[in-house]
Amino acid sequence: MTQVGKAEDVARTWFEDLTVGRRFGFGTCQVTRDEVIDFARRYDPQPYHLNDEAAAANPIFGRLSASGLHTMAMANRLVHDGYAREGIRPVAGGGVDALRLLRPVFPGDTLRVELTVVEARPLKSRPGLGVVDMSTTVINQAGEPVMTQSGAFFIDRRPDAGSTEVTHG
Amino acid sequence: MTQVGKAEDVARTWFEDLTVGRRFGFGTCQVTRDEVIDFARRYDPQPYHLNDEAAAANPIFGRLSASGLHTMAMANRLVHDGYAREGIRPVAGGGVDALRLLRPVFPGDTLRVELTVVEARPLKSRPGLGVVDMSTTVINQAGEPVMTQSGAFFIDRRPDAGSTEVTHG
Repeated sequence: MTQVGKAEDVARTWFEDLTVGRRFGFGTCQVTRDEVIDFARRYDPQPYHLNDEAAAANPIFGRLSASGLHTMAMANRLVHDGYAREGIRPVAGGGVDALRLLRPVFPGDTLRVELTVVEARPLKSRPGLGVVDMSTTVINQAGEPVMTQSGAFFIDRRPDAGSTEVTHG
Repeated sequence: MTQVGKAEDVARTWFEDLTVGRRFGFGTCQVTRDEVIDFARRYDPQPYHLNDEAAAANPIFGRLSASGLHTMAMANRLVHDGYAREGIRPVAGGGVDALRLLRPVFPGDTLRVELTVVEARPLKSRPGLGVVDMSTTVINQAGEPVMTQSGAFFIDRRPDAGSTEVTHG
């Protein structure tokens, strides 16, 4: 797991800094066979995520692959650690849209993530917060996208921003 | 974890059996504090999913709550075990749409899931498979929805179905 500095040591990135089109890239994470099986056993015990014979018989995977939920979880950890390094501190997650599993993720793969701000608007209902929608692509060591998704999170507005600006969200 | 019979003992539910509007309800799963913290530490180490003080300071949660990813994972396990009891054997997951985190999930909560088939179509590209889109609601012990999502999976067509029918998908 990536070691990051204390949150207090990093300059904060506020809602106002996450302008549409801004991009981030974070990585990497190694996919291990033990973790693939451990995650699947707990949360997605499909035979093709647990043993090689069932995986070989599966018409889509062909060999042991990670649960899509596990890929989401590994990507989320990469994003979390990257956000910490950038001083981005989400207050809560809002949801996920258009999540697509494009290719299997196999033990031995190395994953990284690319993110783009696709929407950002102040919240009417909570003046101190904004909501940011990030498009995320998870990419393997061959440069192939394995998963895409769009996910929103809530984040603090810059403390001096709310009072001097007309919000329109 | 729920004990289920061997897959071979249960009558198979094929693509053709999952008609639009068909509903399922599966449960239940107890949310434990240890698992909330363990999951968050690995995949979503936000302070408000790890310790009570940070959670109390969070404007949305107020107290220690499960990562949304963890809620997805717990719900997925309920769905997996329910599908096994119904003889539903997905070949692979396809994606997730419109996932919304409606309410926090707290240690001590008991979750169940309700599912409805919202779309089902044969796959042109792979004549032996169909794709089924399920709307899923995760509900807590107070009967409140905590998460909704729509998720697709691939599933085998009934072996005698493909040859006698015109597909249109």
